Amino acid sequence: MIQTMSTLFTKTLRQDPADAEFPSHKLLVRGGYIRRAAPGVYTWLPLGLAVVAKIEAIVRDEMNAIGAQEVRFPVLLPSEPYKATNRWVEYGDNLFRLQDRRENDMLLGPTHEEMFTLLVKDMCTSYKDLPLNLYQIQTKFRDEARPRAGLIRGREFIMKDAYTFDMDEAGLKAQYADIRVAYQRIFDRLGFRYVIVAADAGAMGGSKSEEFQAISPNGEDTFVYSDGGYAANVEAVVTPAPPSIDYANAPAAHVEDTPDVPTIDTLVALSNELFPRADRPWTGADTLKNIAYWVKHLDGTRTPLIVGLPGDREIDEKRLEVALAPETAEPMIAEDFAAAKGIAGVLARGYIGPAKDGAQFLGEKAPSGVRYLLDPRVVPGTSWITGANEPGHHVYDLVAGRDFTSDGVIDVAEIREGDPAPDGSGPLKLSRGIEIGHIFQLGYKYADALDLKVLDANGKLVTVIMGSYGLGISRAVAAIAEDTYDEKGLCWPRNVAPYDVYIVAAGKDEAIFAAARELASQLDAAGVSVLLDDRPASPGVKFADAELLGMPTVVVVGRALQDGKVEIRDRKTGAAEMVEIKDAVDAITSVILR
Amino acid sequence: MIQTMSTLFTKTLRQDPADAEFPSHKLLVRGGYIRRAAPGVYTWLPLGLAVVAKIEAIVRDEMNAIGAQEVRFPVLLPSEPYKATNRWVEYGDNLFRLQDRRENDMLLGPTHEEMFTLLVKDMCTSYKDLPLNLYQIQTKFRDEARPRAGLIRGREFIMKDAYTFDMDEAGLKAQYADIRVAYQRIFDRLGFRYVIVAADAGAMGGSKSEEFQAISPNGEDTFVYSDGGYAANVEAVVTPAPPSIDYANAPAAHVEDTPDVPTIDTLVALSNELFPRADRPWTGADTLKNIAYWVKHLDGTRTPLIVGLPGDREIDEKRLEVALAPETAEPMIAEDFAAAKGIAGVLARGYIGPAKDGAQFLGEKAPSGVRYLLDPRVVPGTSWITGANEPGHHVYDLVAGRDFTSDGVIDVAEIREGDPAPDGSGPLKLSRGIEIGHIFQLGYKYADALDLKVLDANGKLVTVIMGSYGLGISRAVAAIAEDTYDEKGLCWPRNVAPYDVYIVAAGKDEAIFAAARELASQLDAAGVSVLLDDRPASPGVKFADAELLGMPTVVVVGRALQDGKVEIRDRKTGAAEMVEIKDAVDAITSVILR
Repeated sequence: MIQTMSTLFTKTLRQDPADAEFPSHKLLVRGGYIRRAAPGVYTWLPLGLAVVAKIEAIVRDEMNAIGAQEVRFPVLLPSEPYKATNRWVEYGDNLFRLQDRRENDMLLGPTHEEMFTLLVKDMCTSYKDLPLNLYQIQTKFRDEARPRAGLIRGREFIMKDAYTFDMDEAGLKAQYADIRVAYQRIFDRLGFRYVIVAADAGAMGGSKSEEFQAISPNGEDTFVYSDGGYAANVEAVVTPAPPSIDYANAPAAHVEDTPDVPTIDTLVALSNELFPRADRPWTGADTLKNIAYWVKHLDGTRTPLIVGLPGDREIDEKRLEVALAPETAEPMIAEDFAAAKGIAGVLARGYIGPAKDGAQFLGEKAPSGVRYLLDPRVVPGTSWITGANEPGHHVYDLVAGRDFTSDGVIDVAEIREGDPAPDGSGPLKLSRGIEIGHIFQLGYKYADALDLKVLDANGKLVTVIMGSYGLGISRAVAAIAEDTYDEKGLCWPRNVAPYDVYIVAAGKDEAIFAAARELASQLDAAGVSVLLDDRPASPGVKFADAELLGMPTVVVVGRALQDGKVEIRDRKTGAAEMVEIKDAVDAITSVILR
Repeated sequence: MIQTMSTLFTKTLRQDPADAEFPSHKLLVRGGYIRRAAPGVYTWLPLGLAVVAKIEAIVRDEMNAIGAQEVRFPVLLPSEPYKATNRWVEYGDNLFRLQDRRENDMLLGPTHEEMFTLLVKDMCTSYKDLPLNLYQIQTKFRDEARPRAGLIRGREFIMKDAYTFDMDEAGLKAQYADIRVAYQRIFDRLGFRYVIVAADAGAMGGSKSEEFQAISPNGEDTFVYSDGGYAANVEAVVTPAPPSIDYANAPAAHVEDTPDVPTIDTLVALSNELFPRADRPWTGADTLKNIAYWVKHLDGTRTPLIVGLPGDREIDEKRLEVALAPETAEPMIAEDFAAAKGIAGVLARGYIGPAKDGAQFLGEKAPSGVRYLLDPRVVPGTSWITGANEPGHHVYDLVAGRDFTSDGVIDVAEIREGDPAPDGSGPLKLSRGIEIGHIFQLGYKYADALDLKVLDANGKLVTVIMGSYGLGISRAVAAIAEDTYDEKGLCWPRNVAPYDVYIVAAGKDEAIFAAARELASQLDAAGVSVLLDDRPASPGVKFADAELLGMPTVVVVGRALQDGKVEIRDRKTGAAEMVEIKDAVDAITSVILR
């Protein structure tokens, strides 16, 4: 097909949009691929929709190839199934809820596990109906607190979600493996760099899960990998607990005056000045930092929580979010300690510690009554400088297991470059990524909650085991753009480009326009899709737009026409060659098929 | 492609679903094309989605052929544009409204005039950017009071909506004509009977509009047509006012005792008994019936309204709805007259009339203060028997224009078979239909409200003139089913059938299954899509499902295989022929291409 730039519904912009931070967002808006309709909600213009259509076709092709069948659920869903699994509550503010004219609760689907489970329950009764692999390509909704990054984190987005149904775990694992391979094929065809990382099953409530992360310095997610082959989202990294230490000969704990040490650094400095160690200086890793949070429960109430971890590490807010989900945490602020909120007089700001006056102080059953969770590194026998629960005082040589315990372990400290991989495969490296796929071995959570059972070969009712598999279509548009753009603009892989070829009619001479149109017709007849820049604009404007829009091949019909030649440029490499116009169609089609 | 029935995600039902009234609804559920997810909200199963995909492809093909460009708006829309045009209020309970986590009002798009207007305002600045024809295929939402008839009137549905933008009315008319032709091509290809009728522009606020009505005895809409070529939705029929009558010699009005005449029939009977006419008997057409309503305003208040019309006609509720929109009416009931609602003591139930004691009584400026609107047939000089506003009394020879007037005309009486066409093209006939397309010459309503202007060739800002064009995709699925089904089941036109051919492997012999599979492979290689019934079920079950599912060609591989033959049946006509299996592919492809 031939589309002319003079009639294409688009408008290229020379300036970045004010609200855009990410290259993909800036370029997709500047190139006239998308327009913002509301925060986190976008309109697809013809060029953007063409990319979506190409991605959807590849996804359908690979999903159908493994025997998946396409269905489509409504956007507007009844609340009852989501109440049955408690996700109506667990999703919190992320769920768009509404009431219809009869005041029935309804919601905009964020993901469709419940609906698929109920559909299969309605349609299937026997092991003969399984295994089953169903998918849909559907618009989904999440009321993100901070919609950002254009298509990467929108409130309305297009997703392919698939669900598998099996009689047993072996069946689930086999289908999971099939979809994992199908995803690899899909992302390979889409043409961007990605890695598969172990993930936290999170709110889905499953067991094993993996993410497909598009590698991107602008990604919102951080993942780690080792040369030995380990790869995981930071939220999924399990910090190995070091071995316990014998504390039989450890010195007794002693409280010291430590005025004016508002930070770990000042505490370490003061300790090295007043109470120096014989063997080496104190470091932040010798201190036990205790951070106070309010935990907000689903019923709206909140309770205090102290997280203890080595003072040289910060808490990773995303790991904390995952560890506490569906509950959420917010850090206590100065006035929480000052005001009469039940914490005033209990916790001494800046001097919180697990023990007081030689006895356990933090903990649900200890005098404070405040829940206390510890980093996995705080194993029995480790010795710490930490708050003495009296303003201006810290306690030294406080030994875990001897002088204090906790209500449990919480693994929420930041992961650092060089930390050991949990599987012993070497030091970790960090990278950033955009989550473009997430596959879950769900297990029985939804089938149990919604009572999905079928008869097995012996006539016995068996609960079905499920998997769920997400793939972000609109997010993939952004991920591809992020991984392929250059300083001149977008630079689409051929499989997803809206058009194969951008023809620039460069000049004012009607002969140039006529030759460009003729070449477009010949290419169209050869099955090549063409965007023909036939506008009465300057060659400079057209070249700039050709580069901004990013079709993989640019053909210039210009001055060289007088020598019977046109130029064929590769958008990505910039490589250009002059060819006889009579050979142009062959030259271009051979490039496309290359 | 080949799909086997043994793996297809479907389940055929022998019983009609309890909530289904319409054949299309029953058969689409029984055939496993759709499943209900909530009232008026459906899930598409693979067979149903395949029909949708075929319809969408035809719609895209014909829209693109006239130069329309596809975009896609969000489902979730900001409220501000709809507040600017007042549709936020005018849509009433039909609009799904919600708030996001920041308490911003949002809505689920019922139709996108506002959003398209704003997009074009953002993208276009000059007459050079026009004319423009944009469309989307999108899920839309209306919170219908009575969702019914399956896909015919759902609360979530798929629609193609297009919008045109022009510099002047001639441009609008030209694009309107193009889309009208494209719609004819689309509906011709979809394969069902339809008519184009004049329509009321209704809530869209435009001038000219036409509907494409699928002819169906089960349709919700009534349209009329004449042999002379007039065709209109009943809501759009304008009753011509007859000429006025000279009343110089008309007898004076006189009030008579008319006890116990609760109906027009009893009033006519009593009149013929007590006050007979010399020339002919009284009929219902001589009486002026006055019906009392409460009109509910958008601000929630309500005011009384009396509609006067000839006693032999009923009010058509849909015509009334259109005439009053966006206000709504509900009939007064007995207790409205009894209770102290401002009407008690003013209106005498059963004896309401325009005049009382020889003077105007009904009307906003008359003693009652009640708004009074009259049927167009009540022209000056017409003489009536009507209520005297005293219980037990009617007035006779009450002459319009002499003895009473009104606050205006309201054309809401039922249209009857045989009524004259407004354009004088002969008596009207009535038919029922399903509205599957509606095209509007909108004019300036949205461009004015949202300030869409572009520069003309003289550098002057000119308001853009718009059209809007709806086409129900999901409703078309039902309309096609309604027009083509028979007593055995669905009966798809080939252009929209999920598969070209349904192959029944009829028997238990493995040779039959092998031959059926081989034939399916050969057809697949020839580009024919096949649904292969390879289930270990009885031939009877398979034949019944072949008929229920409605693929246009059924091939039976059964006992005749021993003679080297298979049967090819036409699903619609039932015509069957036996062919040599070696000729089967040629025979089938020639049927498909026929």
